[in-house]
Amino acid sequence: MKRGRFLIMATKIILPEAELPTKWYNIVPDLPSPPPAFLHPGTHEPVGPDDLAPLFPMDLILQEVSQDRFLDIPDEVLEIYRMWRPSPLYRAHGLERMIGGPARIYYKYEGVSPVGSHKPNTAVAQAFYNAKAGVKKLSTETGAGQWGSALAFACAMFGMECEVYQVRASYDQKPYRKAIIESYGGVIYPSPSTNTQYGRKVLEEDPDTPGSLGIAISEAVEVAATNEDVKYSLGSVLNHVLMHQTIIGEEALKQMAMVEETPDVIIGCIGGGSNFSGLVFPFIREKLAGKMEPVIRAVEPAAAPSLTKGSYQYDFGDTAGMTPLVKMHTLGHPFVPEPIHAGGLRYHGMAPLVSHLRQLDLIEAVALNQTETFTKAIEFARVEGIIPGPEPTHAVAEAMNEAERAKESGEEKVILFNLCGHGHFDMGAYQAFLGGELEDYEHPEERIQQAMARVPVVAG
Amino acid sequence: MKRGRFLIMATKIILPEAELPTKWYNIVPDLPSPPPAFLHPGTHEPVGPDDLAPLFPMDLILQEVSQDRFLDIPDEVLEIYRMWRPSPLYRAHGLERMIGGPARIYYKYEGVSPVGSHKPNTAVAQAFYNAKAGVKKLSTETGAGQWGSALAFACAMFGMECEVYQVRASYDQKPYRKAIIESYGGVIYPSPSTNTQYGRKVLEEDPDTPGSLGIAISEAVEVAATNEDVKYSLGSVLNHVLMHQTIIGEEALKQMAMVEETPDVIIGCIGGGSNFSGLVFPFIREKLAGKMEPVIRAVEPAAAPSLTKGSYQYDFGDTAGMTPLVKMHTLGHPFVPEPIHAGGLRYHGMAPLVSHLRQLDLIEAVALNQTETFTKAIEFARVEGIIPGPEPTHAVAEAMNEAERAKESGEEKVILFNLCGHGHFDMGAYQAFLGGELEDYEHPEERIQQAMARVPVVAG
Repeated sequence: MKRGRFLIMATKIILPEAELPTKWYNIVPDLPSPPPAFLHPGTHEPVGPDDLAPLFPMDLILQEVSQDRFLDIPDEVLEIYRMWRPSPLYRAHGLERMIGGPARIYYKYEGVSPVGSHKPNTAVAQAFYNAKAGVKKLSTETGAGQWGSALAFACAMFGMECEVYQVRASYDQKPYRKAIIESYGGVIYPSPSTNTQYGRKVLEEDPDTPGSLGIAISEAVEVAATNEDVKYSLGSVLNHVLMHQTIIGEEALKQMAMVEETPDVIIGCIGGGSNFSGLVFPFIREKLAGKMEPVIRAVEPAAAPSLTKGSYQYDFGDTAGMTPLVKMHTLGHPFVPEPIHAGGLRYHGMAPLVSHLRQLDLIEAVALNQTETFTKAIEFARVEGIIPGPEPTHAVAEAMNEAERAKESGEEKVILFNLCGHGHFDMGAYQAFLGGELEDYEHPEERIQQAMARVPVVAG
Repeated sequence: MKRGRFLIMATKIILPEAELPTKWYNIVPDLPSPPPAFLHPGTHEPVGPDDLAPLFPMDLILQEVSQDRFLDIPDEVLEIYRMWRPSPLYRAHGLERMIGGPARIYYKYEGVSPVGSHKPNTAVAQAFYNAKAGVKKLSTETGAGQWGSALAFACAMFGMECEVYQVRASYDQKPYRKAIIESYGGVIYPSPSTNTQYGRKVLEEDPDTPGSLGIAISEAVEVAATNEDVKYSLGSVLNHVLMHQTIIGEEALKQMAMVEETPDVIIGCIGGGSNFSGLVFPFIREKLAGKMEPVIRAVEPAAAPSLTKGSYQYDFGDTAGMTPLVKMHTLGHPFVPEPIHAGGLRYHGMAPLVSHLRQLDLIEAVALNQTETFTKAIEFARVEGIIPGPEPTHAVAEAMNEAERAKESGEEKVILFNLCGHGHFDMGAYQAFLGGELEDYEHPEERIQQAMARVPVVAG
């Protein structure tokens, strides 16, 4: 019989349910220096818990500034995690066979969640702590829609309301996200909307604006800040969000140990930073403890290259300047990335913790163009069977590039990457790619300079 | 803290990978009488293996007529099954809590496969046996696209080509299915197409025809019959297809035993019959052996009510009359069901084996309208977290109805149903439902009569 290069398939490495991690990992106390404080947007003084209280319940604020290395995952959250967790780790036999060479490739797959991505790991936790605090409704923003879908799902699980502001361009392009959010009982508005003062202001200046993630954040924050029963929920960037995602890496550590492997290179795609941090933080802990020596690499889109081309300085998380000032790699808060299909990576800034790790030289960063990432993702799908979401095509492509380099050098590398979601909701991106309609957007330098000129100068 | 009805969640019952069943179950030798033979469309004589050889490889033809109770699953197929199998069985705690009453509800979830449905269980097996026989290309039809996607995935795994004829109406409505099939390297044509003699004939008579599953089957069969390197692949109806799906029920039997439960009612949605048969055949074996007494119920759409309103007689599987004549519950091969969103259930006929079981009174059947099934599916999604595909909304709704009846009567029933796929590719259906635009199509009696008038009269 015909045995082709396609026959030897991915092997699923399943962690027994009894081994599901019961603690999140907080990397902050393990770092050689603490990350810089958040500053009040008006006073430029360090932000205290009370400043954040209009937006977040106290449990999450305390997690944001926690110095504990491990935090117990509440039983109510574990109960929901168990719907899809532990998630599988795959040995990419098909990919290895296709590439050839000595690399062994593993990927953690988060597409098994009810909304097809890693986002519910923090959405469920945030919904839980808000429900515990008696909050009736959460407001949030969403770009492509992964985060809004995840929060709507999580709110349904705890019987809460959910109000989502989706970037208008995506709202118009991706009507099915609206259907998902509404199926879970959430409500969704295109942003800018007439619901908020800021939204009305933006619409007045430009009624036909396609919106941006920064504008949508401003609207969702305003709704929470001006309504007592409503709190705000963010899908990435903040310390507590990244910490909730460490369940990914804690599982992966155990799964790699099950097959007696130690990664030499760990790769994740990066926009705000949450799926990357979720996988790599526990491995950085092991690295800092001298137990392994992996290279850790973030892959960002060339159209939003905050880690590779941004400045490390204080900037706002949103467009209106309502959020605290955070020290991070930024392209300038007015920067609106070109419309690449990886909507989840179209952000002007970067998680402050990830930026800090980059400054400490604990992680590397590269930027890739989407035509390359989709080319590689198609090759991946045909041997591994899974169609990656547009965001993790960046991780897939870099892992394949790393395996090619190992083939050239003859090094027996163990590569681990995060396949943080499937592409079933984003087949329009593949359709564009297969139809030869995918564009790259390089050289954003001039637009970055213009945006950076509008960033306030803050000491520190 | 607020503990609502939403808090107690589904519990995942995971079969250890070592317990993955290694045999498919063939129900035929266990039945009190054999199912009627297939007849040649021209001679009306029983079809022999040689008659089927232009369409299928000999391994699958022998499976079609096998009298063995169990058939070994080849290692190459098991290797791919292990990408997502064993699939989870869930205890529907959230649903039980919402409905109240004494019923305990379990569901087997097939949405974890790479294409989000149960279809790869047979697609992988069929691709394997064809690859083993040296076949270069498979042709097939698809309605909504679940089957075409599954076969394209399976062909990619074995390095084969795949040619899909998709019903034109669905091809135009669901462009993302094209993107999935092409991502896996398959090619897809709207049917009727100009590739085949039959397609050209239909187009000549009606250039604007929306097509039908029966027409698409005729085209795919013609391609295989007239090209030596091409074989045909069917996603349901035939004995070997149903047998490949029994991996679902074999796993579920073991999982129910893990929690020491015996089902009182087993429910699956039904169009051609494959997900229903896959779950229930192993349970019927146990029932025939006197080990349990479950009621087994197929749920069909009111718009294609072959089991509840069709005639049990010989008819063609396709519209052109190119397939063998099979004895089944049929609405008449020219019958084109109304455009309900459960495209996978829009078929004029029924698997001959399922029809035979219905005649033997081993199974029951009910028909539901789609407004009811989507209403229930939304309630399900909000407590269980998973958005069902349009087809299994029928199983979800009937399971919920059964639980309501148990609540009324006070009976402590154990209900098991097959959630054969997620709805991520079909959010347009939910969008239509949520927007109040979903229609029901009742009273197809007159159109059934017209179609039945064109069915050939065959003795037996």
